[in-house]
Amino acid sequence: MTFPAPLTGVVPPVCTPMTSDREVDVPSLHRLIDHLVNGGVHGLFVLGTTSEAAYLTDRQRRLVVETTVAHVAGRVPVLAGAIDMTTPRVLDRIASAAAVGADAVVVTAPFYTRTHPAEIARHYRLVAAASPVPVLAYDLPVAVHTKLPADLVLSLAAEGVVAGLKDSSGDLGAFREVVTGAREHPDITGFSVLTGSELIVDAALAVGADGAVPGLANVDPRGYVRLDALCRAGDWAGARVEQERLCALFGMVGVGDPGRMGGSSSAIGAFKAALHLRGVIDCPATAEPQVPLDGAEVERVGKFLAAAGLL
Amino acid sequence: MTFPAPLTGVVPPVCTPMTSDREVDVPSLHRLIDHLVNGGVHGLFVLGTTSEAAYLTDRQRRLVVETTVAHVAGRVPVLAGAIDMTTPRVLDRIASAAAVGADAVVVTAPFYTRTHPAEIARHYRLVAAASPVPVLAYDLPVAVHTKLPADLVLSLAAEGVVAGLKDSSGDLGAFREVVTGAREHPDITGFSVLTGSELIVDAALAVGADGAVPGLANVDPRGYVRLDALCRAGDWAGARVEQERLCALFGMVGVGDPGRMGGSSSAIGAFKAALHLRGVIDCPATAEPQVPLDGAEVERVGKFLAAAGLL
Amino acid sequence: MTFPAPLTGVVPPVCTPMTSDREVDVPSLHRLIDHLVNGGVHGLFVLGTTSEAAYLTDRQRRLVVETTVAHVAGRVPVLAGAIDMTTPRVLDRIASAAAVGADAVVVTAPFYTRTHPAEIARHYRLVAAASPVPVLAYDLPVAVHTKLPADLVLSLAAEGVVAGLKDSSGDLGAFREVVTGAREHPDITGFSVLTGSELIVDAALAVGADGAVPGLANVDPRGYVRLDALCRAGDWAGARVEQERLCALFGMVGVGDPGRMGGSSSAIGAFKAALHLRGVIDCPATAEPQVPLDGAEVERVGKFLAAAGLL
Amino acid sequence: MTFPAPLTGVVPPVCTPMTSDREVDVPSLHRLIDHLVNGGVHGLFVLGTTSEAAYLTDRQRRLVVETTVAHVAGRVPVLAGAIDMTTPRVLDRIASAAAVGADAVVVTAPFYTRTHPAEIARHYRLVAAASPVPVLAYDLPVAVHTKLPADLVLSLAAEGVVAGLKDSSGDLGAFREVVTGAREHPDITGFSVLTGSELIVDAALAVGADGAVPGLANVDPRGYVRLDALCRAGDWAGARVEQERLCALFGMVGVGDPGRMGGSSSAIGAFKAALHLRGVIDCPATAEPQVPLDGAEVERVGKFLAAAGLL
Repeated sequence: MTFPAPLTGVVPPVCTPMTSDREVDVPSLHRLIDHLVNGGVHGLFVLGTTSEAAYLTDRQRRLVVETTVAHVAGRVPVLAGAIDMTTPRVLDRIASAAAVGADAVVVTAPFYTRTHPAEIARHYRLVAAASPVPVLAYDLPVAVHTKLPADLVLSLAAEGVVAGLKDSSGDLGAFREVVTGAREHPDITGFSVLTGSELIVDAALAVGADGAVPGLANVDPRGYVRLDALCRAGDWAGARVEQERLCALFGMVGVGDPGRMGGSSSAIGAFKAALHLRGVIDCPATAEPQVPLDGAEVERVGKFLAAAGLL
Repeated sequence: MTFPAPLTGVVPPVCTPMTSDREVDVPSLHRLIDHLVNGGVHGLFVLGTTSEAAYLTDRQRRLVVETTVAHVAGRVPVLAGAIDMTTPRVLDRIASAAAVGADAVVVTAPFYTRTHPAEIARHYRLVAAASPVPVLAYDLPVAVHTKLPADLVLSLAAEGVVAGLKDSSGDLGAFREVVTGAREHPDITGFSVLTGSELIVDAALAVGADGAVPGLANVDPRGYVRLDALCRAGDWAGARVEQERLCALFGMVGVGDPGRMGGSSSAIGAFKAALHLRGVIDCPATAEPQVPLDGAEVERVGKFLAAAGLL
Repeated sequence: MTFPAPLTGVVPPVCTPMTSDREVDVPSLHRLIDHLVNGGVHGLFVLGTTSEAAYLTDRQRRLVVETTVAHVAGRVPVLAGAIDMTTPRVLDRIASAAAVGADAVVVTAPFYTRTHPAEIARHYRLVAAASPVPVLAYDLPVAVHTKLPADLVLSLAAEGVVAGLKDSSGDLGAFREVVTGAREHPDITGFSVLTGSELIVDAALAVGADGAVPGLANVDPRGYVRLDALCRAGDWAGARVEQERLCALFGMVGVGDPGRMGGSSSAIGAFKAALHLRGVIDCPATAEPQVPLDGAEVERVGKFLAAAGLL
Repeated sequence: MTFPAPLTGVVPPVCTPMTSDREVDVPSLHRLIDHLVNGGVHGLFVLGTTSEAAYLTDRQRRLVVETTVAHVAGRVPVLAGAIDMTTPRVLDRIASAAAVGADAVVVTAPFYTRTHPAEIARHYRLVAAASPVPVLAYDLPVAVHTKLPADLVLSLAAEGVVAGLKDSSGDLGAFREVVTGAREHPDITGFSVLTGSELIVDAALAVGADGAVPGLANVDPRGYVRLDALCRAGDWAGARVEQERLCALFGMVGVGDPGRMGGSSSAIGAFKAALHLRGVIDCPATAEPQVPLDGAEVERVGKFLAAAGLL
């Protein structure tokens, strides 16, 4: 399908269900996709952080895109992360995702290697020139270890290099600079500004964001769809209530013992445990070398679901 | 060939010569390998940072290993970086490198994703269990954004998980802890402790390192081989003179204008310019999105070579 | 005066006017205080980052508090930063500020030294036990290099150790966790949650903040007072217009050439240049070793003022 | 006394003994000074990191310098840290230390505030111009959060702004650049290059350092004096044995439980416990808000001492 300009609404970064031997669990992925699309979401983002893209082999990544595109069958646009270190490698990831039907790709600045603002701009220009589908910039300083400056994003948008921004920096002030800059710039039209936050979707929409990419929407897509609708209706008081309910639910990301595992193991482990408890996926396994949640931790996930009326 | 236990001496991280359209330049790589092996080096490390591993596609990476193993033909051991984000992806890289004959692989902690000491240990254990060749740990905090703690390296060494350490952390105190810890631990034998520094090879060997992996050895392999020999002979005063000559030569990594490019563009650009000026490789191109050196910057590389008697 | 519980509204971090030889310019400080109080602000925060607290000697710091308390004469509460490295030094700063009448003090976690969550908690407990006035926590990761975790702030609030939070972390998600946590906790009452942002005051108030401490309010106090009033009236559309006008004005912090000076020189230099151009202070000098703005840079500050209708 | 140009040998950063109510314990400080001077050290550095300068009030800092200068009575030079955030505050610290007889002061780049290379250079120039005693640069990235670049140090040295460098960066490659740069620069004479490391004093002296400022020399001054003498005699094998003994002893800095305290509490707690166990100081208390070692942790310190033959 044609990529919307701009893309608006709720676009969950789709978890990647796995079997206990860490293969992509296609039937569970089908059910998860239906759970999301039937929940009213406006797009799907596969191969993002919440999708464990960093942990999937290239074969698995391709299978995820292929499976998703086929199963979605045009109901909503499908964005695919093209997560790799530098230009030539990202282009390989884009080619693979586009070949099996991704509607757009999401690309970070170079990482692992030392980089420079001029090299980041060069990277996006080269990537966009060679990509058969629109490219969104992915700002994820916690992973990439540089932040995309607002003025760079805006100048790339004005050149037509990037079609949108997925901002997971947590910095709403800088995010707002992109939102208002894109709105006011004569050469920018149809640019999609999306927040990656779970916790301040109401605030991001209030400052003018087009949409949100909240990992927690895997667990409660209807909640985020309601939140989005309340914001668009200007019911900010109602939106705040819904957002605070989702913030409480998001507490599940902290169930994992920090002495025993890192934040990714805990957060993605919790999302998958919740999807398993809700009957959406068959197995809550996360990819290696993440540490699995233990029984007590999974039980705490269940309590978060129960408190939110989701069990 | 059997991987030496320990590996000692000078093991350059081999530059990857490229054509002007950024394909691997196989004839230049052949010449570079001969330049190094004939220069007396004791091993070759392909697909490291200096090799622009982060910029090479999987196909190019495989071609580099295959070409190197074939051309070296057993004259020295060939180590290959298996640089990727997490366990499953690293295992793909290892399978590829081992299939074309790498004698050992060099593996970092997980990067891009958030990680944890327990997950780093799990990563190495899983990687080593599945690798057909010995695994060396690669400590590169500037890229990976975590530092491998000395006690973790030593416990993995004692378990037989890792066969060595390539330390590019710059922290000689922590490096020494690994060197002396490995020497004194009853369960550790044949463990290779290698420094990635260009500037303190004499100091690293003096504290007990087995060898060095200096990027600058591409440009002046004989210099590092001399340095290594002087250290092994206990001629520390002579070693210091040779090391200081190499430190002066290393100044070439700063030729690139920091307003225009990052440190990788400048350093790797300088090494390749030097190899081109010395007639070893046909083209000084670096991979995208690195910024090329301009004429004046290349001229300054030439002056460093001339001052070191290498032109 | 009694410190309000909670403190609400606009509480500018007051610039410290200086003579050209870097002494505190008391007459200009009097005028600046009147400019702010007559502009309708609800409190004053002296010796914060915008006040150049890090650059003022202890004698100057005391003079600033003394001058401000005397000149304010109870019209609004006066908070004073007690910025120093560790508990004993902070207690000296508090004693000095309280002796000359500060209504509350604002205290960061220990900095410069290596620290730990348990030590941060211990620090606040010891500081509060010895302070004659209420203590607010100051979360400023860019300076302190640790972030105050929301759960730590909430537990210190529940114990009665801290009376409020001044959050300059830029992380609205974590800020919201404090806001909602304080609201819901049975043992927390009258706790003041203040944002240090200039750019998202509307969003912070929308999520439930009590007030704002925006440096730019030195330049345009009436703008922030209007913004605060619009938010409290629930006129979020009107608030957004006013906030976006202030965001554009905030662009002045970038006038300084980043090749020639750091962010503090540029931002504080711009605020003081604006106050000088507006006739509030006699001299735009900033403290050493900050680099002064040049004529062209000051001219650009003037254009920001003109565009905002402030000249 | 006249400050030596260069200062060479072992210059311990002197611990600050405290009573149980955290006052400076002057009789214990006298004994510690004698322990060090009688142990053969070549200078004393008070108010450094190991001295808990960050935790001492200005009154206490002055008392430490005054007490030390009086008790040393010219036997060795006394350097004093002048640790504060910016130029005006550092100048106050220098005035205080010089007034009571410090022979030189040691000054970091500005911290807490955002800074810039041009501002760091300006800082040192202003500080040196106003200081009555020589100024040494203190490179301590773990505290200051910027690293002093070698070329900046060398240009300040060539201008006569700084008389030496105390390097606690851990980066021996950059340290070597200063050492060789200072040796070769025609405008630099008598410049003191000192390493702050405990673990690689032999390596630092081998690359040309003038001396060392090891915190562990509080515990074992004779060990470091022996090490220094072996290095100066060119007995590198003997030096390595002595250095490795001291590295093992240094393991005491890790006795504190990292779940319960930070690195400063553990390291300084261990040094003070060792001095207490050796009978040099009356009380092992560390300053607030550091967490004290418990009985089992102190016992482990004792085992390190016993293993090193120091009990």
